[in-house]
Amino acid sequence: MIDLGLRAAALLAELAHASEDGPGVTRLPFTPQHRQALDQLTAAMQETGLSVHLDAAGTLIGRQEGQTPDAPVLLIGSHQDSVREGGAFDGIMGVVLAIVALAGLREHGIALPFAVEVLAFADEEGVRFPTALVGPRALAGTVDPAVLDMADADGITLRDAMQRFGLAPDTISRLHRDPASVMGYIEVHIEQGPVLEAADQALGVVTAICGIERHQIMVMGETGHAGTLPMEGRRDALLGAAALVTEVNRLARSGEDLRGTVGALTVVPNVVNAVPRAVQMTAELRAPRDDMREAAGQALHRFAAELAQSTGLTIDIRRSYHQPAQPCDAHLTAVLQHAVRATGGRGMTLPSGATHDASAMADLCPMAMLFVRCARGISHSPAEYASPEDMGAAIAALGATLRRLAFGE
Amino acid sequence: MIDLGLRAAALLAELAHASEDGPGVTRLPFTPQHRQALDQLTAAMQETGLSVHLDAAGTLIGRQEGQTPDAPVLLIGSHQDSVREGGAFDGIMGVVLAIVALAGLREHGIALPFAVEVLAFADEEGVRFPTALVGPRALAGTVDPAVLDMADADGITLRDAMQRFGLAPDTISRLHRDPASVMGYIEVHIEQGPVLEAADQALGVVTAICGIERHQIMVMGETGHAGTLPMEGRRDALLGAAALVTEVNRLARSGEDLRGTVGALTVVPNVVNAVPRAVQMTAELRAPRDDMREAAGQALHRFAAELAQSTGLTIDIRRSYHQPAQPCDAHLTAVLQHAVRATGGRGMTLPSGATHDASAMADLCPMAMLFVRCARGISHSPAEYASPEDMGAAIAALGATLRRLAFGE
Repeated sequence: MIDLGLRAAALLAELAHASEDGPGVTRLPFTPQHRQALDQLTAAMQETGLSVHLDAAGTLIGRQEGQTPDAPVLLIGSHQDSVREGGAFDGIMGVVLAIVALAGLREHGIALPFAVEVLAFADEEGVRFPTALVGPRALAGTVDPAVLDMADADGITLRDAMQRFGLAPDTISRLHRDPASVMGYIEVHIEQGPVLEAADQALGVVTAICGIERHQIMVMGETGHAGTLPMEGRRDALLGAAALVTEVNRLARSGEDLRGTVGALTVVPNVVNAVPRAVQMTAELRAPRDDMREAAGQALHRFAAELAQSTGLTIDIRRSYHQPAQPCDAHLTAVLQHAVRATGGRGMTLPSGATHDASAMADLCPMAMLFVRCARGISHSPAEYASPEDMGAAIAALGATLRRLAFGE
Repeated sequence: MIDLGLRAAALLAELAHASEDGPGVTRLPFTPQHRQALDQLTAAMQETGLSVHLDAAGTLIGRQEGQTPDAPVLLIGSHQDSVREGGAFDGIMGVVLAIVALAGLREHGIALPFAVEVLAFADEEGVRFPTALVGPRALAGTVDPAVLDMADADGITLRDAMQRFGLAPDTISRLHRDPASVMGYIEVHIEQGPVLEAADQALGVVTAICGIERHQIMVMGETGHAGTLPMEGRRDALLGAAALVTEVNRLARSGEDLRGTVGALTVVPNVVNAVPRAVQMTAELRAPRDDMREAAGQALHRFAAELAQSTGLTIDIRRSYHQPAQPCDAHLTAVLQHAVRATGGRGMTLPSGATHDASAMADLCPMAMLFVRCARGISHSPAEYASPEDMGAAIAALGATLRRLAFGE
């Protein structure tokens, strides 16, 4: 399948030109770069015999009809947008691989009983607006209309941006699909992590999209002159924060597939010769299993309470955000795994630590994801890379998945 | 001596009005507030029979002649300036207590054989200019002329500011005193720490001004998505920084009178869902004994090297600043201690963790310091406070010191 992988690589290289100037790819939603990408994708879809339209939420949809009228449709998609100075693979690769996989089946004269729609969502990264996932949420019927009033850095609302792009944002509630009309949603995406590379596997099947919880922590002590204040009796907020950083790491290492990160930490007053008075910090936990994540979060709260007790620090810790895990559909996942094995892979499984369009699609229909190895686990960077060989493997697995769903092969 | 303590408190309350508007006292050098304080101090000095002049470096000098012509002079002083929104005691109290102590002796008809000069230095805090201690350094002959070209936040150089204040900055090299003409320098200062309060003592005699070393530390790891990067194999710069914060504290607690502080710490990129790529931080060590401080600094460097080895982080640690300890003069210190005991104190000793005008005066002559208890160890704050009782005790001890130096009492 290396020829199909090379075809995908060539199309992705062309799509990478649909970018603002600067390093890597910068393609934000509802911009001229978005339009340019849609024109290229439309051409590729039409070449593959798909009928193409842009829905009211800005999702480009290429549809291949099935042999059995009214059979539930299979959706395969991902997002067209990138972060600023991102790469040429994150999101858009999933759209391109779906198109090339359908082209491959067509070239082998294989007609599927069900219709397939390839979806290129407008905005998954949420870089331009303080919201994202309007495309998949419109299909699932879960868009909060208030998001249309959110503005970008230039004060342009999402509604305005969509209208200028020729869309009809106020009609997106009509996009809601009947769940009975949809067989499922499959998304192919670069892993954005190092697990497949370390395991020497091109492909991995996602077990679940991890749940997330975030904690805002404020550690309050007492400042003082770093020279005149003896060590005895100090209430150093940074010393307490260091214990919390260490504990978040320890907790995360104690559970399989649990991830714990203190990403942000700010010291007050933050000068060389003053004992820190306060530290504001975040802690984020992610896991494919909600019970395991929640147990770790509770353990962190207990640790903070004991630390406050033993140090005289005041520690305010509160869970500021949480989002449950989205387990992938067992049947679709088994089909994907079978397809990976049938095309030469080990069929290894792994959780997705990041959120995807699939998270929103899970509200509509059974959802499954296939990860493709990316070099050194890097994403959101011009250095992002998936090889033509690995993309070829993903196209083969996708083709095998479609055949198995269609013919039980 | 409570009456003299109350007299000092009244004078300090009056001097606290020589301040910019806002909370507490803000009196920066070579400003109208500085002028106002000098006018008040001049009046108090003259009332006490001192002859007053302002030297070329901005030091207000009130001189009481001695009975023996040409006997080496005893200098007693501190600084007039404050930090922004500081208190009414730090620095200026040492000037006021010296004036009141001389007034007390005079009222008892005691004439000293040697001359005494009360010094009110212009700038010890270094808040306005990126330099300080020009007054004592001028007397010691250690001013680097280049500091006159340093500018404040408004671009006014130290030279300009001094000239506008009526001074002749380019003649300060002539202020250098002949060491043979000076008996010693005594400074009375609030402790700026909690040691005396904890020991229930009004006064403490300083053993040494601690040496200081500062380290700039850069911990470099690798960033990544907090969700997609497994714990295994992470190189989290903040996790390494937390270990260093903990170790600085452990090292400082392992040595008597050793102090260790990580005051400043900045995380890059500092966002909730990214593994920290880099942390820039400081570590400061202070001790009255240079060998102990240097051993701790070397231990910290070894710890950093081992941490880098075991974690895969890159840790760049360099000593960016150091200043040796200034031991106080043994004879003057013994006299101070005797005087404290003679006036009802325990004569306890403690190191000074902060730098003082005395640090610069040590280059000229024997130096000693007397600390006065301050409420809850607080300084550099509107809440800074020393009681009239404790100031009275300091005045009594200062009087006893002068009598012992004069008459061996």
